[in-house]
Amino acid sequence: MSHAISPLALPFPAMPPVAGVALRVARARYKTWDRCDLTFVTLAPGTAVAGVLTQSRCPSPEVEWCRRALVLGQARALVVNAGNSNAFTGDRGRQAVEAIAARTAAHAGCQPSDVFVASTGVIGVPLPIDRAEAGLDAAFVATPCDWQAAAETIGTTDTYPKGATTTAIVDGRPVTLVGIIKGSGMIAPDMATMLGFIFTDASVDPAFLQGMLTAANTRTFSCITVDGDTSTSDTVLAFATGAAGNATLVDDDSTGADAFRAALTDLCHQLARLVVRDGEGASKLIEIAVTGADNDRSAHRIAMSIANSPLVKTAIAGEDANWGRIVMAVGKAGEPAERDRLSIRFGATQVAEAGLAVAGYDEAPVAAHLKGSEIEIGVDLGLGEGSATVWTCDLTHGYISINADYRS
Amino acid sequence: MSHAISPLALPFPAMPPVAGVALRVARARYKTWDRCDLTFVTLAPGTAVAGVLTQSRCPSPEVEWCRRALVLGQARALVVNAGNSNAFTGDRGRQAVEAIAARTAAHAGCQPSDVFVASTGVIGVPLPIDRAEAGLDAAFVATPCDWQAAAETIGTTDTYPKGATTTAIVDGRPVTLVGIIKGSGMIAPDMATMLGFIFTDASVDPAFLQGMLTAANTRTFSCITVDGDTSTSDTVLAFATGAAGNATLVDDDSTGADAFRAALTDLCHQLARLVVRDGEGASKLIEIAVTGADNDRSAHRIAMSIANSPLVKTAIAGEDANWGRIVMAVGKAGEPAERDRLSIRFGATQVAEAGLAVAGYDEAPVAAHLKGSEIEIGVDLGLGEGSATVWTCDLTHGYISINADYRS
Repeated sequence: MSHAISPLALPFPAMPPVAGVALRVARARYKTWDRCDLTFVTLAPGTAVAGVLTQSRCPSPEVEWCRRALVLGQARALVVNAGNSNAFTGDRGRQAVEAIAARTAAHAGCQPSDVFVASTGVIGVPLPIDRAEAGLDAAFVATPCDWQAAAETIGTTDTYPKGATTTAIVDGRPVTLVGIIKGSGMIAPDMATMLGFIFTDASVDPAFLQGMLTAANTRTFSCITVDGDTSTSDTVLAFATGAAGNATLVDDDSTGADAFRAALTDLCHQLARLVVRDGEGASKLIEIAVTGADNDRSAHRIAMSIANSPLVKTAIAGEDANWGRIVMAVGKAGEPAERDRLSIRFGATQVAEAGLAVAGYDEAPVAAHLKGSEIEIGVDLGLGEGSATVWTCDLTHGYISINADYRS
Repeated sequence: MSHAISPLALPFPAMPPVAGVALRVARARYKTWDRCDLTFVTLAPGTAVAGVLTQSRCPSPEVEWCRRALVLGQARALVVNAGNSNAFTGDRGRQAVEAIAARTAAHAGCQPSDVFVASTGVIGVPLPIDRAEAGLDAAFVATPCDWQAAAETIGTTDTYPKGATTTAIVDGRPVTLVGIIKGSGMIAPDMATMLGFIFTDASVDPAFLQGMLTAANTRTFSCITVDGDTSTSDTVLAFATGAAGNATLVDDDSTGADAFRAALTDLCHQLARLVVRDGEGASKLIEIAVTGADNDRSAHRIAMSIANSPLVKTAIAGEDANWGRIVMAVGKAGEPAERDRLSIRFGATQVAEAGLAVAGYDEAPVAAHLKGSEIEIGVDLGLGEGSATVWTCDLTHGYISINADYRS
């Protein structure tokens, strides 16, 4: 956490423990830094797991490991490495993941396939197995820590630790959901979060948990973007320990399924926005709501075209109501759009309607809105019922400074 | 031309006149600036025209006008406005184009459909018809000017005027090709150049000229990107006056067709690279060559994914051989790729092969290459015979400075 704290940062919330989950952190020294960089989480026997993973065609061996392990739907431990993503490291990378899983399984008394592994950091440098093992050994005997310590330990270029929590009543019992997440660049469509971990004491069937997480992802993590770049390591895992003792949620008809789904979606939404708030160099959080599109998918693509446009993002950074750049971004999305039906607003102020500037358009309220730290852009295409909302941040000198000298 | 001249700028070349083409410039005062901003070109009777236009779904009325006029294949005049793109201005925008075409046609003694119009500048502000007409009246009586004056007049945020020339022997006669172009941002796939105009004294059938221009565009203007954004006004027009007196080129079997095609492609290539060299804030020209892809289209998409990645572009700005970001950009392209067959080079130095860093990789020659102003990135996918080469520039603080306060 070497850069100045994002001006959009939120304080770390009070987060309750989750029965069946124990957190520990240690120093594996993956980089020459004086901080914990290995997170070790144990999970009660019977814990269900679901996950969404990067769509990258060049994923890290950790992602491939998790993809296979998810098929079984059971988890007993999670290991997260920060400082080295272990991506693009060939056989040595695979060996590192296998070594971590084996050692953790031996310690926890479970199968290696019950162990989930995620790593984040520089690409192309094999994760040093000796350091991982020494870090694990230290973590195994460490005193359990709180959510904030774990959230800090999974971070890399993040400028603040990110966590969120919510609750639901399921089958008459209160259940807790918490999540921690890291990521501030390489955040993009089709699986946004670099690394996010959700824990609940609810009892949920793995397949049902997977369905709910996938659906929530579509409306949250897949709707955020910082720079349009997609990590080789993007991972969101959700663990349900079952310690709350509710009758296991198995499908939509289970008692409390709706409440749990809503809580899970809300949690994902909170976590996703926390990542955008730490977008590299961000000074403004931008919400882009597209309506009136041919369909939801088309609306999403148009919203992402706006959200990823460097010209739109620099205009917002400059507090410039340059709505022409939004027209440009709609036009380049390749989706159905008719220039003369297009309407655009900033905040509550309509600036363009039916293909041209609103008569007597007063820029003053728009200028005032753009001076704030949370910007709303609304685009109505006037074609159909499709809609989507996405979140991004502005593009500033800070992004250049962070990324032009990341490795040095 | 308000910003510092690009460090990648090339001097304006000596460019010969083209028989049948006369250039004039004038002050229409589309903005409060003390410079010419209207270019008026007259073309000899019988001039053939071809064009490629923006793929934007929200094009300017000028683009729609040119699209219709191109069907006829004949041109007598070209008017280019700088400082106001007239895009997204509804009926008033259409009226402005019609007024310009009508006045120009009356002056030139031709049909309005023989007049081509292009405009560049801010979006959403109707082009003032009175200023256009006054500018045209001044241009009609102006002394003809040279290519450099015209190239300067079509520019907006360009930091230097851009022109190129070449020659060919067609049907035993020397023919001349010249081009001028403007653009330094909103440069992206599927029709890159903001405004480019090519002139030749060769005699070419309009349909054949269109075919050659479309093919050249695929390998040149569609292979450059500055920021992934696409203008609502992108236009490249090619005019062939026929004054050289060659037997008209009508198809591939025409004498000299190959030579003309090669010259046209070379000219487009020169012009396209000139635009990248003026990429907003650019300090380095980056050539990205992708080989071994499934097919050429796939190679092109992967190359563009790399070329548009903010993380790749900032790494190059920082002279950082962060090839992991190239792996990331390959992975996110959504095209066939196998991590363990991927090879990457910077300049002549192989840095990764078969999915991991080259054994004993020495970063010194790569660091030296990255300190230069022309960077080469090579990616081999190891899958098939598909290849593509694209050009982009790095992403620097200059881009932010230019675009965060463009309108002010």
